Parts: sequence; structure tokens; C-alpha cells
Amino acid sequence: MKVTIAGGVHGNELIGVYIVKKLMRENFWLKDIAIDYLLANPKAIKECRRYIDYDLNRSFSQEALSEDSHIYEYERAKVLKKRLEDTDFLIDLHTTTANMGITIVLSKDDPLSANVAKILAREYENVKILRWFGTEEGNFINSCVKSSITIEVGPVCQGVLDATLYFDTLKVLQRTLDVLRKEEQLQKSVECYDIFDYKDFPRTNGDLDGMIHPELLGRDYELLHPGDPIFLRFDEEEIFYDEVPSYPVFINEAAYYEKGIAFCLAKKSIV
Amino acid sequence: MKVTIAGGVHGNELIGVYIVKKLMRENFWLKDIAIDYLLANPKAIKECRRYIDYDLNRSFSQEALSEDSHIYEYERAKVLKKRLEDTDFLIDLHTTTANMGITIVLSKDDPLSANVAKILAREYENVKILRWFGTEEGNFINSCVKSSITIEVGPVCQGVLDATLYFDTLKVLQRTLDVLRKEEQLQKSVECYDIFDYKDFPRTNGDLDGMIHPELLGRDYELLHPGDPIFLRFDEEEIFYDEVPSYPVFINEAAYYEKGIAFCLAKKSIV
Repeated sequence: MKVTIAGGVHGNELIGVYIVKKLMRENFWLKDIAIDYLLANPKAIKECRRYIDYDLNRSFSQEALSEDSHIYEYERAKVLKKRLEDTDFLIDLHTTTANMGITIVLSKDDPLSANVAKILAREYENVKILRWFGTEEGNFINSCVKSSITIEVGPVCQGVLDATLYFDTLKVLQRTLDVLRKEEQLQKSVECYDIFDYKDFPRTNGDLDGMIHPELLGRDYELLHPGDPIFLRFDEEEIFYDEVPSYPVFINEAAYYEKGIAFCLAKKSIV
Repeated sequence: MKVTIAGGVHGNELIGVYIVKKLMRENFWLKDIAIDYLLANPKAIKECRRYIDYDLNRSFSQEALSEDSHIYEYERAKVLKKRLEDTDFLIDLHTTTANMGITIVLSKDDPLSANVAKILAREYENVKILRWFGTEEGNFINSCVKSSITIEVGPVCQGVLDATLYFDTLKVLQRTLDVLRKEEQLQKSVECYDIFDYKDFPRTNGDLDGMIHPELLGRDYELLHPGDPIFLRFDEEEIFYDEVPSYPVFINEAAYYEKGIAFCLAKKSIV
């Protein structure tokens, strides 16, 4: 089995970058598993930016992969698709400015990915499973492998390291490799969250008119009810939630301001 | 009296950007005071980056201001120096990823700036005064005005808004204008902190070897003693503080990683 461990798909999410560098340097390896260490967006890592021209983790759609492009990330995606051809399992390391603890994002609906996520969620109290099968912006990097999980940890600012979250991520990554190596199986069902909608900030002519309400900030995975405050305008007017009860995630994620996402809405179900 | 209110000297510090935009939009004005609203680095604001080519807040040294340059911020600094020629007082709005509450940074040793800072620090419990008279990297924007304060709030990530800190900043800004308009004076002395040294992360060949120790993270303005842990290496080895007792500030500020600053050391004194 070949596993690829990717850091720096987003160049300013430092925990993944430094975990991959550490494991490369230590020449960490495992019996029965071939590991490929990948610093996915080296130019963005060097500049400590999310991306240079376009979000690399939205650059794997058929269109992006087929056209000749002036976009650095589209060209890089073509190189990575080739490199990932014989990868059986991708572990992609990310961080978020939202208070999401350790979230295993599943973007593929396959048994191996789901099995690994379930084992992690049952073993660690602060690990949650979030299913997100793609966006209109373009496909994620894991669209070109058979199986994968994304380990998304937060809250941590872009461009900084947080030692506690660094070692939490490392622990979950090592357990993932362990599960893959031993081919462990879990038959039991586990709770998971499915993203089904997005909420944008209040805006005028595209520019922000307000912020996440202080009562919502940091409350990822806490049930949001109609009537709960969600935004506070710059003029101090409050805006209230008026849809079906749902679980907000990625609340105030820095990189999603430009995508028109103040937070995502998820439903809870059983996987 | 002419007061300039600047936001976006760093384009990804959104609180200042959106306060300046709000006041411009409302056409906020005061009797007896002419106000100039300044979005200082429009290109960086548009791209939501700290800067394009070089830190604008280090681009006001004589050298930078005199040479023809390919650096966008050096050119912008020349324009701003001209614009600030008749400014009596500059209020410069910043944020930090460090847990610094509301810090009034004084970078000029003049009575008016010190008086305003003292009044703010005595009135608000969470306002501290920090004196920082420059760096070897180049002069701050307030080097070209007679008097100024920098309002530095945190912790907040780059590229995001925090409603509580937004309104805290606005409150302190409005009180500053009030003090200037009424020419209030405070004869009493007030505590302040003076930056006297910097500590860099552990590194090998320039690249990080470790992180801020979890026991230090978030403890800005708390006295650091010899023997206290300050860094945690990627291999889990702890590094301890071995200098004179001092107050750490700007702990884990994202923008200072590239400057070789993990945190600054300050002494407490009376202003």
C-alpha cells in the first residue's frame, strides 16, 4: 500500500507543512507501507500564502487539469495528479481559523476512507467527522486518489504554529498510519456531519457589512436554532438565524471570506 | 488640529480597514478637528496580504524614502509622507495574532502622544502602553508625523474580523478623538512597557525547529522568569528562559516569523 502525506496544500497552514518536513527529515518509514511525503504548494509555502494565483485545493476539476493555463496552481495540480497516480491513500493536513478541534473531512464516499475516519472518531473525544463532497469552485486534491482523509485542525491563525494542535495532529496522523498498516476494521456506526449549505456575511456591493456575532464565534458544531444571533453589522444591528436547526462549521475561517462563506451549515447523521 | 486615522497599513489586519471604511462612509466628522481617513496600503488590502513587496510600516526610513525603487511599499511611503505633511496627530489601527488585549504603542517620545496614551490606559482596564521606538528594518509610518499612537489589538487572526475587538478598537479610537478635541491633560504617572530585546524561534539553517511552548502561548504581559519554558522543539524537547525577568509581548505574532521574532521582551516602567 502506498500512502501520501501532504502538507502545505495551503502554504500558510503551517502545522501540516512542519509535520511533513519533520517526518521527511527523520526519514520516518513503516513496514508494509510506502510513504510519499508531499509539500504540495512549494511556492505558496515559501511566501507563506494560501496560494499564489488560485486555491490549489480547488484546482483538480477536469477543466483545470486539461487547459493550458497561466495559473500556477493549475499547473501544479497537473504535476500532483501524475504524482498521486499510484497512491492508495492520501492524508492531507490542514488548519482552520475556526474552532473545529480535530475534524476528519471526508470528501470521498468509499469504505476505506470512512472506516479510518470512524476509528479515529471513536477513539478520540475531540475528533469529529465532516463530509464535504466538493464545491462549485473546483475539485479538491483528493478527487484524484482512491481513498483519503483530510485532517483539519483549529482554531489556529494562518502563518503560525500552535504546539498543542501540532502534536494533536501528529498523534491522529500516526494512528491513521497504524490503522492502515494493520487493516483494522470497525463495524460500528459513528456520528458524522454533512455540509449542505453556506451562509455569507451581510454585504453591500460585495464588501462586508458586518461580522460573525460574538455569541456565534467559536461555537462550531453547536446546534444553531432559528432566532439565534449570527451576525453583527458595523452599525451594531443584529442579524438572526431563520432557517432549520443546523450545525455551523468553519465559522469565521479566514480563507472563506473571499469565497462568500461566513460559515457552513451541516446536518448530523450516522455513518 | 488635523488628525489622520489610518487603517490597512497592513492589508490583512481587517479591523482597522473596516473601521476606516465605516467612518468614511458615515462621513464622520468632529467640530474643531479635521479628520483625514487613510486606507494606507490599498493594493495589499485588495489582496488581503500584509504587504505586496515589503512591510509598509518599515518603509519610512530616509533611505527608503529617497531611492527610486521597484518596491511598491517604498513608492507608497513617499506618497503617504507627502499626504501626512500637515497631520498633527496620527492614529494608526493594527491587529496582532498575539494575546495583547488593547495595546497603545508609542513610537514617538513627545508629550502629546504620551498624554493621550496615559489617559486611555488609566480609563480602560485592558489598555496597556508599550513603547517601541523603531527597528533596524526601517522606520514606522508615524516617524513622519509630530504625534501619534498605534492601537494594536489582539488576539485576532490575519484576514478575519472579531466583533468584540472591532467595537473595543472603535471605542478607544473615539475616546482618543475626544481627548484631542478637548485638549485633556493628565498629570499623573502611568505604568508602561518598553521593548528592549527580541527572542527568535529555535532554527536550523533559518528554518523553524520548534514552536512557542504551550505554557507561554497567550501570556503576553505576564512576567517571564528564568527557568520558565518558552519553546517546544518538534522533537518535544523543551527550551527554558535563561535571562533576567521580563515581560514578553507579541508572542507568536504571525507577521514576525519572517522577521526572526518569536516574541519581544519588555521592561515595566513609569511614564
